[in-house]
Amino acid sequence: MDETPRLKNAWCARVITLFPEAFPGLLGESLTGKALKEGIWALEPIDLRIFGEGKHRNVDDTPAGGGAGMVLRPDIVDAALNFAARGTPTDRDEWPVVYLSPRGRPFDQAMARRFSRARGLTLLCGRFEGVDQRVLDHHHVEEVSLGDFVLTGGEIAAQALIDASIRLIPRVLGNQASTEEESFSDGLLEHPQYTKPATWADRDIPEVLLSGHHAKISSWRQAMAERLTKERRPDLWRAYCETHGRDPEEDREL
Amino acid sequence: MDETPRLKNAWCARVITLFPEAFPGLLGESLTGKALKEGIWALEPIDLRIFGEGKHRNVDDTPAGGGAGMVLRPDIVDAALNFAARGTPTDRDEWPVVYLSPRGRPFDQAMARRFSRARGLTLLCGRFEGVDQRVLDHHHVEEVSLGDFVLTGGEIAAQALIDASIRLIPRVLGNQASTEEESFSDGLLEHPQYTKPATWADRDIPEVLLSGHHAKISSWRQAMAERLTKERRPDLWRAYCETHGRDPEEDREL
Repeated sequence: MDETPRLKNAWCARVITLFPEAFPGLLGESLTGKALKEGIWALEPIDLRIFGEGKHRNVDDTPAGGGAGMVLRPDIVDAALNFAARGTPTDRDEWPVVYLSPRGRPFDQAMARRFSRARGLTLLCGRFEGVDQRVLDHHHVEEVSLGDFVLTGGEIAAQALIDASIRLIPRVLGNQASTEEESFSDGLLEHPQYTKPATWADRDIPEVLLSGHHAKISSWRQAMAERLTKERRPDLWRAYCETHGRDPEEDREL
Repeated sequence: MDETPRLKNAWCARVITLFPEAFPGLLGESLTGKALKEGIWALEPIDLRIFGEGKHRNVDDTPAGGGAGMVLRPDIVDAALNFAARGTPTDRDEWPVVYLSPRGRPFDQAMARRFSRARGLTLLCGRFEGVDQRVLDHHHVEEVSLGDFVLTGGEIAAQALIDASIRLIPRVLGNQASTEEESFSDGLLEHPQYTKPATWADRDIPEVLLSGHHAKISSWRQAMAERLTKERRPDLWRAYCETHGRDPEEDREL
């Protein structure tokens, strides 16, 4: 299953899916792909189909009580989860077991940090109408949602979750500073960015950014991050004010 | 760029990216892939690199004011957006132009519905530290965030956004009923699902689901959806109560 070298104790994602060939997909490109090839993290897709029953390797059946679509069977998913658990820590803090579903707790940067500090994780990708609830209860599976929208399957959500998590592992991105300044690292949206040319389409880069005055640049960026968060995400702004002893109604406009 | 037949007026996603070869990726699998092959929707990746400058086709430069990472240049992104705009309606309701960024408005099911009703859309995938703000302002680009987390690039987010949108286009999924009953379609999380066998690992399917009594099954599912939403997502529960004239504190536990 593994074609790449793997560093000792490399972070590992085991992904239970009906589309194992769609991995690593975009995770195999760019810096995450480079880190994968270098063995800094590892990916083990597990084909759910091989646990299916009968000639057609059936993995699903109709929903009890009727309704559209199909539901993944508990016995099949159980076999796949047991296979994925081989050699992994039983402590869920060290090795989370996650089912991607819109019914789960919304994925966020804090969760990405938590996953990045584990030794690895197992991800179960749903399809159709979902998974029999009993097997999720039986295995104490953590339900995680990528957001308040519905996807055709859990695979794209799994790739997003893995991407957000592995980029926080030291050495995956070349430049650690980059993850310290970005959106959510301190609870705010990131300030706007500019690059050359200084004037483009009659629009100038804000003067302060060209001043070379580091303290002024830093305080401008902080003010812009605060303004943007306040305007676009009152929910994040209130949370930020609470943790930073600030009044959400105060006006610090430039 | 197009190898598949396309139905007249097929919904189309134009994706500006440094990784055009990573598309359709998972969108080429399963029902979304089938609908793509049938020409019900179309995908046109646009390689940002071809608009780059010089021998190395540079697309980015250092951030004005200093800091880690690189920023996509306004002139390069402008050229790509102009290319992507050819032959598309200028009305942004008919053809949204979206930049995927954690600083945007959070993507949700209502936005997926809006996008699915457009004639198509253009998606700009960021990399590095982002895109020069001026080109986003100049083109009236809508900033959309997949959630409160940071990804290595916008490509996985683009695939998620496209997946959630196209599955709402008639004929993409075989069974329309399936999108009417699922999470968020009425503002609630979906009820739990069960399938055969009736007893697994000493756990039974809830009796009501095997009763064949459709009204009882339907009211059990509604009650479970409400309970789950109340427990897991007080934010959604409050919004649901507001639109349905319900008291969020009332107790309708089974």
